[in-house]
Amino acid sequence: MLKLGIIGAGRIGQVHATSITNNVKNASVHMIADPFMNEDKIKWINELGIENITTDYKEILENKDIDAVLICSSTDTHSSISIEAARANKHIFCEKPIDHDLAKIQMVLEEVEKAGIKYQVGFNRRFDNNFKAIKDAVTEGKIGTPHIIKVTSRDPEAPGIDYVKVSGGMFLDMTIHDFDMVRYLSESEVEEVYALGGVLVNPEIGEAGDIDTAIITLKLKNGALGVIDNSREAAYGYDQRAEVFGSLGSVAISNDSGSKAVISTKDGIVSEKPLYFFLERYMQSFGEEVNQFVEAIVNDKNVPVNANDGLQPVLIGLAAKKSLEEKRPVKISEIF
Amino acid sequence: MLKLGIIGAGRIGQVHATSITNNVKNASVHMIADPFMNEDKIKWINELGIENITTDYKEILENKDIDAVLICSSTDTHSSISIEAARANKHIFCEKPIDHDLAKIQMVLEEVEKAGIKYQVGFNRRFDNNFKAIKDAVTEGKIGTPHIIKVTSRDPEAPGIDYVKVSGGMFLDMTIHDFDMVRYLSESEVEEVYALGGVLVNPEIGEAGDIDTAIITLKLKNGALGVIDNSREAAYGYDQRAEVFGSLGSVAISNDSGSKAVISTKDGIVSEKPLYFFLERYMQSFGEEVNQFVEAIVNDKNVPVNANDGLQPVLIGLAAKKSLEEKRPVKISEIF
Amino acid sequence: MLKLGIIGAGRIGQVHATSITNNVKNASVHMIADPFMNEDKIKWINELGIENITTDYKEILENKDIDAVLICSSTDTHSSISIEAARANKHIFCEKPIDHDLAKIQMVLEEVEKAGIKYQVGFNRRFDNNFKAIKDAVTEGKIGTPHIIKVTSRDPEAPGIDYVKVSGGMFLDMTIHDFDMVRYLSESEVEEVYALGGVLVNPEIGEAGDIDTAIITLKLKNGALGVIDNSREAAYGYDQRAEVFGSLGSVAISNDSGSKAVISTKDGIVSEKPLYFFLERYMQSFGEEVNQFVEAIVNDKNVPVNANDGLQPVLIGLAAKKSLEEKRPVKISEIF
Amino acid sequence: MLKLGIIGAGRIGQVHATSITNNVKNASVHMIADPFMNEDKIKWINELGIENITTDYKEILENKDIDAVLICSSTDTHSSISIEAARANKHIFCEKPIDHDLAKIQMVLEEVEKAGIKYQVGFNRRFDNNFKAIKDAVTEGKIGTPHIIKVTSRDPEAPGIDYVKVSGGMFLDMTIHDFDMVRYLSESEVEEVYALGGVLVNPEIGEAGDIDTAIITLKLKNGALGVIDNSREAAYGYDQRAEVFGSLGSVAISNDSGSKAVISTKDGIVSEKPLYFFLERYMQSFGEEVNQFVEAIVNDKNVPVNANDGLQPVLIGLAAKKSLEEKRPVKISEIF
Repeated sequence: MLKLGIIGAGRIGQVHATSITNNVKNASVHMIADPFMNEDKIKWINELGIENITTDYKEILENKDIDAVLICSSTDTHSSISIEAARANKHIFCEKPIDHDLAKIQMVLEEVEKAGIKYQVGFNRRFDNNFKAIKDAVTEGKIGTPHIIKVTSRDPEAPGIDYVKVSGGMFLDMTIHDFDMVRYLSESEVEEVYALGGVLVNPEIGEAGDIDTAIITLKLKNGALGVIDNSREAAYGYDQRAEVFGSLGSVAISNDSGSKAVISTKDGIVSEKPLYFFLERYMQSFGEEVNQFVEAIVNDKNVPVNANDGLQPVLIGLAAKKSLEEKRPVKISEIF
Repeated sequence: MLKLGIIGAGRIGQVHATSITNNVKNASVHMIADPFMNEDKIKWINELGIENITTDYKEILENKDIDAVLICSSTDTHSSISIEAARANKHIFCEKPIDHDLAKIQMVLEEVEKAGIKYQVGFNRRFDNNFKAIKDAVTEGKIGTPHIIKVTSRDPEAPGIDYVKVSGGMFLDMTIHDFDMVRYLSESEVEEVYALGGVLVNPEIGEAGDIDTAIITLKLKNGALGVIDNSREAAYGYDQRAEVFGSLGSVAISNDSGSKAVISTKDGIVSEKPLYFFLERYMQSFGEEVNQFVEAIVNDKNVPVNANDGLQPVLIGLAAKKSLEEKRPVKISEIF
Repeated sequence: MLKLGIIGAGRIGQVHATSITNNVKNASVHMIADPFMNEDKIKWINELGIENITTDYKEILENKDIDAVLICSSTDTHSSISIEAARANKHIFCEKPIDHDLAKIQMVLEEVEKAGIKYQVGFNRRFDNNFKAIKDAVTEGKIGTPHIIKVTSRDPEAPGIDYVKVSGGMFLDMTIHDFDMVRYLSESEVEEVYALGGVLVNPEIGEAGDIDTAIITLKLKNGALGVIDNSREAAYGYDQRAEVFGSLGSVAISNDSGSKAVISTKDGIVSEKPLYFFLERYMQSFGEEVNQFVEAIVNDKNVPVNANDGLQPVLIGLAAKKSLEEKRPVKISEIF
Repeated sequence: MLKLGIIGAGRIGQVHATSITNNVKNASVHMIADPFMNEDKIKWINELGIENITTDYKEILENKDIDAVLICSSTDTHSSISIEAARANKHIFCEKPIDHDLAKIQMVLEEVEKAGIKYQVGFNRRFDNNFKAIKDAVTEGKIGTPHIIKVTSRDPEAPGIDYVKVSGGMFLDMTIHDFDMVRYLSESEVEEVYALGGVLVNPEIGEAGDIDTAIITLKLKNGALGVIDNSREAAYGYDQRAEVFGSLGSVAISNDSGSKAVISTKDGIVSEKPLYFFLERYMQSFGEEVNQFVEAIVNDKNVPVNANDGLQPVLIGLAAKKSLEEKRPVKISEIF
């Protein structure tokens, strides 16, 4: 039974604590840390039966009983806590992104290697049953050699402007998942990026220096072509689809909804909207990614999403940003 | 080039005249007869380029140039005109039903045999591409031995009470198509019928002695089970579905609509309603059934829906009526 | 925190123990009893962290700490344990069916009333998100007054002959869920039943005195019509669909599958098969029904599926059996 | 009754001749011209009942009875025959593209204006019921302001190398329809194009200087973003889909197939492939575009696809070509 420490008791920390307690085998949450610990947080931590609570994550790093940590703190602390945890010889599951700063990511990679620990990055969508079904079809050769990888990724509502300002921009905040998905599905690195963006949802997002709508095309090293379309706001809810088209056919997924009910009346044939947002849509995947992280530690196997998998989408995101600014295709080699 | 005469220039006569002119090979409409010929009718007949118009169908029967007739007159004249046409040695395509009176149908069958002509009954749904796809899957053995045959058949709006009164009852007017479909898909005769009915759409239909909603179960001679559900009024339009379930799986069809467009908004995911009614839904089938009739004449082959195929659904309909009245399963052998 | 005792550590007992531990709020499993306790069972019980294990369910009944019991033992013990548990003043969640013998069910009902305890029967499908979505649409009036209730219920593979012999027959073993569903969706009692059955899957089932394929029509007290089609073996997996058709339209559900992936190749457009069987398809519902049982106890509310809801489907099942034997529609009032 | 002349009796000429004869109102084919007239062609022309046949299209232009011509000859003759026909004062329906040479298109536009005739270009997909349903949803404001326009367009099999060599390249031969579709659905002109292409289907296509796979992004003047993905060879058939995503939601179409039959077996749930190619998929649209051309003449209205609509997609195609060559986004203003 692996003992885990969770650093950060915000939304994603709560998601992991809950799914580890209920659905992850061979592991339990031994301690949880949050600098802003409050009654609400303590309440759900107690309900989950987690016994040790602290406001100082260093207590987790110093605790000899704890085998691994989940870094669920704010993005700007991911890299420094990763480095500390690696030095404390804990296995690490780090929420995405590792950092927006390449030098810091690079330092994390070095420390991880030095420490010889497992380091997994939280690209949870790979563990979603739908995306996994696409990947399986590709891996099993059902659609032949991939030619085109398409990802549609639209949020149900734009974030507040305060968040937009600190988000690192849509490409690093939102599209980063889609960049990872293209790498995952294509089994190839990206060579070049061209980004077309617009401010079509909310002009304040533009004033804050960001965009809310984009089409990004990706030239992959294996010759395949990738394309992502993003919007910060789809009126009908969270739109998460993908397709891989290849020499023998295509595999595609549609959205999951709360039920398969279809209501037919004089107004039309009406199905349910997609599940509202990532907490509804991807809950199963949050459990599964930690399950595989635990399994990798227990059986000393490779983690399914490693530190380099954390680095690459940041590179692609920075290339996309540069492409948007300079209105031209940008090679990853220009970034790193 | 076969020369055809159409008897009856009402709605179904016009459908046949149009589709023969535009879509049926090796045949043309040489003459059209209607006792209530009027300006409107003459207008569309002229537009189709049909040259000979008469108010007396006997002119068609006496015309030596005409090879075959389509009987599209009112139901109560089907059997008598069939007999006259057979005696005039014309091949006959007769709209369903041949008659509600078994003795009269019997007489038609005898005259047809005596004359040695082709006699096809207008169960057009067999020629619909969707129902045909079910049949093909069954015939090709894709679903193994059929166990259950299900037909859903619901009209978009109940007919007027005046029509209900002369319709022969829902089973002979509407369900008759579904009885034919069960025979066609199962490739078996029906042994026994149990009908459960209700007046749920319009109480006036009940006052007129009919029902508007029904579930009919059918015991087939080959051991399979059939079930039909009917309503005179589906708020969302014409609902025409079927499924054959067998030892290796099932084949089912959903409804056709005007387009494949799906609109997603905050109110849900909305597809188009089914095509409104039989003229929209089955237009292609009306051409195809006559095509095959013409082909059977030209190549002296069996017609795809013969006189016995016209008789059997009437028997089933009469058994269903008796079942409803006597609240018990009724064998076809009790009827005929 | 309610303390629960589980009587029976077989498949369904394990399902409940697992989902209570992981997904049911305000309750925990305090003790589990099984006369055939073995190492395998002890292993998963320990893994769930359940502390008290016994081979004698009476220990559970006598334990003052335990508030409520789940009866997951073999069907023939349901009624007697129910009576004992009621006398021991425990709230009861009893797996379906209470019994096949009406007198015994009646006795349970009396003891439950006398004891004033909560008694819930395990018709879990009511708690499935898909069937619930149909029910919600009906309750919210979206499809108007229900006219036709259709249930398709097909198992992925026929049970062994040994099981068939003690199952009470397909109607009481399998269709009983569908009878409950028709009552639930129609919000009406059943007045009359007509059953058509066949042995089309496996002749040994016939030799054992049972059927494996059936169509059952139901006349409901509120005037609506119900129809169920059953097969013990659908080659493509567990087929669990339903439709309610009413004056304003219809609501229907299709099957759930493991993913929404669609693979398009030269061989066709292929979606996944339905989830294999009830453990896969209905896992969420097993948690939800116990959640609502616990909530009913905690807040002293009515249970969502009461003892009468346990009785009625047995009556319908017995009427269906009699209908099949006597080849005629049978009224519920003939049974009870 | 308008009298039409058809110039070119190849595949598309035959399509038009057939649908005009059968499905276009108020017009008939008076004469048909083809320099390579042969027995096969004469046979189907006779079967359609078209009376005048010639090898010299000038006979059509000189015939005073003929009101309008359909130019269905080889692409390299479209512009010159257009000019001759305009000077002969015939209304013109010209198959796409008018020409690949902008100067020639410009000359056509001038002659058309001078002559004051109707000039329609054969972008038939606008008249397909599915694409029209998207357009209607956009026009009716159902999805709000368009943000993203997506077109998937994949052929079922790559053309022969001989054809590829004279095709003008994939963008002008195949994607041109998609360029038109983006303009039609967005109701905006294109400002800038970025094309990413590959040779993934057949290396010989690359050797011939063309590509077979592409993603093209389009910056539209109204601020919306467009994206097209193309392949010369989809193993599952002709893939013709589109989506418009806007401020209030999205509208999308899936492919049409031969039937709605779904076969469920142990191997999966299998639907039919899309209709094979454009003749199957778009037959209805070929009739409808000519219907509207005839109507525009008869009622002196604007044609639905005018000469400028013929010019613009060529400009976009040339920009896409330049983008591919120069590996950068290219503005339409750089082309024309």
